[in-house]
Amino acid sequence: MSLAIDPNGERILSDALVTTLKDLLGERFSTAQSVREHHGTGEAYHTAALPEGVAFASNTEEVAAIVKACAAHHTPVIPYGTGTALEGHTLALHGGVSLDVSGMDEIIRVSAEDMDCTVQAGVTRNTLNEYLRDTGLFFPVDPGADASLGGMAATRASGTTTVRYGAMRENVLALTVVLADGRIIQTARRARKSSAGYDLTRLFVGSEGTLGVITEVTLRLYGIPEATRAAVCSFPDLEAAVNTVISVVQCGIPIARCELLDKTGMKMICDYGKLDEYTIGDTLFMEFHGSEAGVTEQAEQVQAIAADFGAGDFKWASKLEDRNKLWAARHNGHYAILATAKPGQHTMSTDVCVPVSRLAECIMATQEDLAQTGLVSPFVGHAGDGNFHMAILANYGDPDEDRLAHDFHDRLGKRAQAMEGTCTGEHGVGSGKIDYLEAELGEAVDVMRSVKRALDPDNIMNPGKMLRL
Amino acid sequence: MSLAIDPNGERILSDALVTTLKDLLGERFSTAQSVREHHGTGEAYHTAALPEGVAFASNTEEVAAIVKACAAHHTPVIPYGTGTALEGHTLALHGGVSLDVSGMDEIIRVSAEDMDCTVQAGVTRNTLNEYLRDTGLFFPVDPGADASLGGMAATRASGTTTVRYGAMRENVLALTVVLADGRIIQTARRARKSSAGYDLTRLFVGSEGTLGVITEVTLRLYGIPEATRAAVCSFPDLEAAVNTVISVVQCGIPIARCELLDKTGMKMICDYGKLDEYTIGDTLFMEFHGSEAGVTEQAEQVQAIAADFGAGDFKWASKLEDRNKLWAARHNGHYAILATAKPGQHTMSTDVCVPVSRLAECIMATQEDLAQTGLVSPFVGHAGDGNFHMAILANYGDPDEDRLAHDFHDRLGKRAQAMEGTCTGEHGVGSGKIDYLEAELGEAVDVMRSVKRALDPDNIMNPGKMLRL
Repeated sequence: MSLAIDPNGERILSDALVTTLKDLLGERFSTAQSVREHHGTGEAYHTAALPEGVAFASNTEEVAAIVKACAAHHTPVIPYGTGTALEGHTLALHGGVSLDVSGMDEIIRVSAEDMDCTVQAGVTRNTLNEYLRDTGLFFPVDPGADASLGGMAATRASGTTTVRYGAMRENVLALTVVLADGRIIQTARRARKSSAGYDLTRLFVGSEGTLGVITEVTLRLYGIPEATRAAVCSFPDLEAAVNTVISVVQCGIPIARCELLDKTGMKMICDYGKLDEYTIGDTLFMEFHGSEAGVTEQAEQVQAIAADFGAGDFKWASKLEDRNKLWAARHNGHYAILATAKPGQHTMSTDVCVPVSRLAECIMATQEDLAQTGLVSPFVGHAGDGNFHMAILANYGDPDEDRLAHDFHDRLGKRAQAMEGTCTGEHGVGSGKIDYLEAELGEAVDVMRSVKRALDPDNIMNPGKMLRL
Repeated sequence: MSLAIDPNGERILSDALVTTLKDLLGERFSTAQSVREHHGTGEAYHTAALPEGVAFASNTEEVAAIVKACAAHHTPVIPYGTGTALEGHTLALHGGVSLDVSGMDEIIRVSAEDMDCTVQAGVTRNTLNEYLRDTGLFFPVDPGADASLGGMAATRASGTTTVRYGAMRENVLALTVVLADGRIIQTARRARKSSAGYDLTRLFVGSEGTLGVITEVTLRLYGIPEATRAAVCSFPDLEAAVNTVISVVQCGIPIARCELLDKTGMKMICDYGKLDEYTIGDTLFMEFHGSEAGVTEQAEQVQAIAADFGAGDFKWASKLEDRNKLWAARHNGHYAILATAKPGQHTMSTDVCVPVSRLAECIMATQEDLAQTGLVSPFVGHAGDGNFHMAILANYGDPDEDRLAHDFHDRLGKRAQAMEGTCTGEHGVGSGKIDYLEAELGEAVDVMRSVKRALDPDNIMNPGKMLRL
């Protein structure tokens, strides 16, 4: 993998590759600075790294042609969906071509009878759910951002509903993938389950573009529940809220969402959304799905558990409009935090996930650690899965502050790993967590390297991400 | 991969390997004919193929030492649990050492708080569930046979409860695996979800011993439901029964088991179990899990749907003893069929799985095809998943009958594939379905070959299974 260097010492794409891509895509291949900047700048704290060109594909065959051309010129390919990845997945660390699939936005097929659908990789989850509304079905995986479904598959995304419906891991039935040499494969048939060979679907789910480009995704769908109720409830402290969640999960109550937000985070979203109806405290956002009777039963059980831990009153939302408002507040967390940033400040996102039995311990220790650093960060948790995030606000241009934040981040990752957890529950490794992966899985990372070398021997697929080769 | 040949033209293990294994295992390494026969004969119609020796391991480190020794002598290793695989997985097609893990029967850890456990690969599902009884937890995956959990992971087993709780794919959290060169890896941490690197857990789940030996399994557990009710119900014909299942699934009713048995199969199990309380007809066996109110609600909904399709009365079982009797009848299906075999007859098991919307069509076409062949076979289906089995009774020693049965089997596999389904929903490819895999997944099988070569370059791990290299 190598790009030519121009007289100024800058990487350049070979003329022959540029000609091939222009012939193939016309205006849909761009080397404009603004387009390159847009595609080479992440949402998070990572330093920008621009591709030398951006190719906008419209179907699987075009993706295959683009990858083949890049392969012939040993040029990196960086798949790009909505650019909402949080670990620098879309940065062109070794230059090359950013392959933008956002124009691949066709919903190819919906089967209400089989409760599944196939979409092009650029379709976003909100677009799919709007399209599905009249069918009585929905796709539950909800990472917050309106990400592309191809990108969600590539990072093994999950989010607020995983405690009930599972993550992308559980909800992708099959993929169409363009391999590093341009071949096109289908990873599985459309049957609900299969024992036919290695599980290539799940090998590509979470592969972060390092083994190939996901171009089509077949997904499980679910019936929109007969009844849905959401509730917000405030607790005397974070530990009480966490212990409520643990009890709910352990009682097997099929809660559909169970989100933790600490006092700091709650203040941020209430300020940002100009919301005055919520108590500023350590809070759970919950949602119940089921029949009318089932939802009532679940709600009563959870209220009883919460009361044991000293919870305040439940603030209920049953109407769609009210629920949307409630979840919009929660989902705006990222922007609410950014709104409090001082000039020069960015956020560094953390993503640890531990066995639920260790969650309270992990959060308490981290809260204490945070207090000692003097840094500011909310706690936001998919608590039912043992997964929580912090968004560490700091001026990453200031070496001292950068060090302070990174050291805190490092201690948190190691703390989670020491509790049999992982450094990343749902964001992925990207370029930000490569060293943690080695610490977490040891020799297994070498197996990953063997798989990578077997499927992408020239290392052109999203190089510099996930694995140090 | 090659074994030495003795003067009689028989494959033999090298003296050095035998010495190493005897030094390591003492009496637990055997070359006795009876032991070799036991390990080289499958449960199904496949021709026996004996290993030259059998190694009984007691822990991961011993497995690693055995595999290392075999690797040094280019000798095949065939992992062996309970020998209940149905596609010839345990046959020593190229000779070598059968690696028996049935003695690895330790339940290493149960966490009631996290609802998970770690077991050695030889622990069977019934042993685990007996052990768990006092904890209020259970492990749901139920393929019928009391298989080892390592073997169930290796074949990506599923069974009667998958419609509610998922298959091994969904319920294995992490594995300890001995690789083809003897290295030991952990595929994941114990967190409920993770985006840390390629999903090696699911790469090894369903790998059928061709990439390494699974030695420990970390599993999700579930709370024993507050209420459980089972029911048996007879239908006017198979199509009515199948359409009832499809409606139940499409209504999102969280039925825990939903098993189809045709009239032929029902007669066999009633004769075998001397059961006179059931109607001999096309039948559904169902089970409902939940709160008392939830179970009642589910049962009422399903009864209403079944009535629309002309079902007879539901015969209920709520007491554990009665439910056990009911499910024992269903699970004895395999033996009930064998009990009707004439001398010289064996069964060939089929395992197609199609999208649920095509299930009725697939079963009807197959029923018609069967009638034209004059062969006898019951239909047994995990209908909620679109997966059904036949057990084709035939004298496989008679070339005409063998041809007739195999041609029928072949048409069924292709019929399912033509309906976007798979040739194997849960049994695996083994040695029996290699050609079907190519037809089903095409170029993707080449990706599987690349992975296999990368992780087992000398092809010593269960050679001759799943892939033609």
